[in-house]
Amino acid sequence: MTWPPIREELRGLQPYGAPQLDVPVQLNTNENPYGPSDACADDIATAVRAAATTLNRYPDREHVELRTALAAYLSKDTPHGVTAEQVWAANGSNEVMLQLLQAFGGPGRTAMSFAPTYSMYPEYARDASTAWVQGRRAEDFSLDLDAAREAVERERPSVVLLPSPNNPTGTALPPDAVGLLCKAAGDDGIVVVDEAYGEFRRTGVPSALELLPEHRNLVVTRTMSKAFAAAGLRLGYLAADPAICDAIRVVRLPYHLSAVTQATALAALRHAPELLGRVDELRAERDRTVGWLRAQGLTVADSDANFALFGTFGDRHAVWQGLLERGVLIREVGPDGWLRVSIGTAHEMDAFKDALSQVMEEQA
Amino acid sequence: MTWPPIREELRGLQPYGAPQLDVPVQLNTNENPYGPSDACADDIATAVRAAATTLNRYPDREHVELRTALAAYLSKDTPHGVTAEQVWAANGSNEVMLQLLQAFGGPGRTAMSFAPTYSMYPEYARDASTAWVQGRRAEDFSLDLDAAREAVERERPSVVLLPSPNNPTGTALPPDAVGLLCKAAGDDGIVVVDEAYGEFRRTGVPSALELLPEHRNLVVTRTMSKAFAAAGLRLGYLAADPAICDAIRVVRLPYHLSAVTQATALAALRHAPELLGRVDELRAERDRTVGWLRAQGLTVADSDANFALFGTFGDRHAVWQGLLERGVLIREVGPDGWLRVSIGTAHEMDAFKDALSQVMEEQA
Repeated sequence: MTWPPIREELRGLQPYGAPQLDVPVQLNTNENPYGPSDACADDIATAVRAAATTLNRYPDREHVELRTALAAYLSKDTPHGVTAEQVWAANGSNEVMLQLLQAFGGPGRTAMSFAPTYSMYPEYARDASTAWVQGRRAEDFSLDLDAAREAVERERPSVVLLPSPNNPTGTALPPDAVGLLCKAAGDDGIVVVDEAYGEFRRTGVPSALELLPEHRNLVVTRTMSKAFAAAGLRLGYLAADPAICDAIRVVRLPYHLSAVTQATALAALRHAPELLGRVDELRAERDRTVGWLRAQGLTVADSDANFALFGTFGDRHAVWQGLLERGVLIREVGPDGWLRVSIGTAHEMDAFKDALSQVMEEQA
Repeated sequence: MTWPPIREELRGLQPYGAPQLDVPVQLNTNENPYGPSDACADDIATAVRAAATTLNRYPDREHVELRTALAAYLSKDTPHGVTAEQVWAANGSNEVMLQLLQAFGGPGRTAMSFAPTYSMYPEYARDASTAWVQGRRAEDFSLDLDAAREAVERERPSVVLLPSPNNPTGTALPPDAVGLLCKAAGDDGIVVVDEAYGEFRRTGVPSALELLPEHRNLVVTRTMSKAFAAAGLRLGYLAADPAICDAIRVVRLPYHLSAVTQATALAALRHAPELLGRVDELRAERDRTVGWLRAQGLTVADSDANFALFGTFGDRHAVWQGLLERGVLIREVGPDGWLRVSIGTAHEMDAFKDALSQVMEEQA
């Protein structure tokens, strides 16, 4: 008997998470490299100061003011608008995902996605005791729609997880995918389009938010961690049919969103233009980085996100390590041979390029 | 087919939670009636202002500084001390409980407690797909140790939940209970002593923290929501063998504690003497309230917490409603016929007593 009596399937597993190393150039967790302005930080402090005066009281369980503000923000991405009743928020989109799986997955039910994809998905499923089935993406990481539809019809998942753009490949879903898979999932399943990186999508790529009125089983998730430059805040949210929010209410922990989180998120949303102001710059930097990597003879997946997946390397760990030794931390993730770099400032990307050139030369 | 496809066992359930009503005298969720001082609120704002400057970065997943501060705080309650490696924190002690059940419960495993007790426990178990077994407390809400030991030996739960003091009855565990039940659970189970209201215990009642060195399967949970006057912060934590913290790491959502939460909690801990400064006053007010209720001919459970369970009423809902109409919100919870009142300020308790006198006279 091993002690402690942790569940059998968890024994010996390592906790999920990129190494948190103190390195000059951190390009490993797809953070926005630009911190909030002094004005924004001041506004957050003022908002939290006000919330702190009643910190002895529980926060609004329904976080109505925050849901209203998030709905107004999302309404910019769809001609149909989004109401507060369609919005639900939690501590990071990973808590949103867990709540969705607790309500719609669980024992005897199946969740699915298409690999390579976000490596936390199977962990959410495991933590909600939900069976996990993984389809495959095409060689170029795009989704083969016929194969995906057939897989959904065969596996009858109660939750389909579709990131767009996909992590770690950066691949956006083709326009027809959402409608097709919502129909395939039918009344037995929900389709979660994870738009954690949605704000970085290239011009002309629509948000799945536009399709909400057509598919009641569609859930679109977002986060303030990426484009919104607030990874430290841990605020994820979704838009969906209000009946789906009602289902989550049954499984959410009471008062899951603190008064401090609600106040900070509201203040950050008031500074949305500033916080999101670097998105265009980051997209341009991304395109330059992809171009540069390709010019080095590397293969790079088309990216609609704030990162690029590139390769392939016979020994990717050696490349990752070589970069780390030069003060540049990227991520060893995705299919074997590939590496992922987050898009930082122009200065940080220069450091990355210099370091990668040196490492590739050394290993040539 | 009902839509949406929520899990069968969740259909038609109401979300957990006391009504959040805007009423002059709120005595329904066992909050501390005293908010933080201006100095404390200022310090929180300053700490969050500092954290906000790097809000674009993910927080410390291991929340080392916070665990160190919590360990120092807990060390006052045990001659053996508590180290940071023994401490784990999450968004409210309800997230701590869920994490414990995800790691040590789950399908095929059982959690148990002794009723009447905290009504969220079976919900945590359900959300972690863990079977739920409930023993009974004695007529006076105390724990019959022989019966409890037999129940644990019979059911072989992997998680035993033992609140002390118990909610909603206020009953502290007898000194021998923890050791006895830790032995009964053995290497197959953990025993969670939920000391959410621990700071309110009467003089001479020890904390289970003292027993940590003797029982590696003992987990003691605490919260900053009650005595610490920070319900809005949502900060719960535990002390246990470091191997138990390691097990939680496998199921915790990455970056579950925001930078804002960590900064606020650290600032609040620096003001511990002030925030906890009202505990003695609240204990005295509790004892006065219990005395007054008994003088009215009511039965009141002995309380080591900041609330009192009293009764019994033929129609408790009518009493609850009568109080509400007089601007006093208490909680309709616990065994049929009983009501629970949180201990507020002397002024609030006067309003409660006046209102209850009127209601009882009306219904006599």
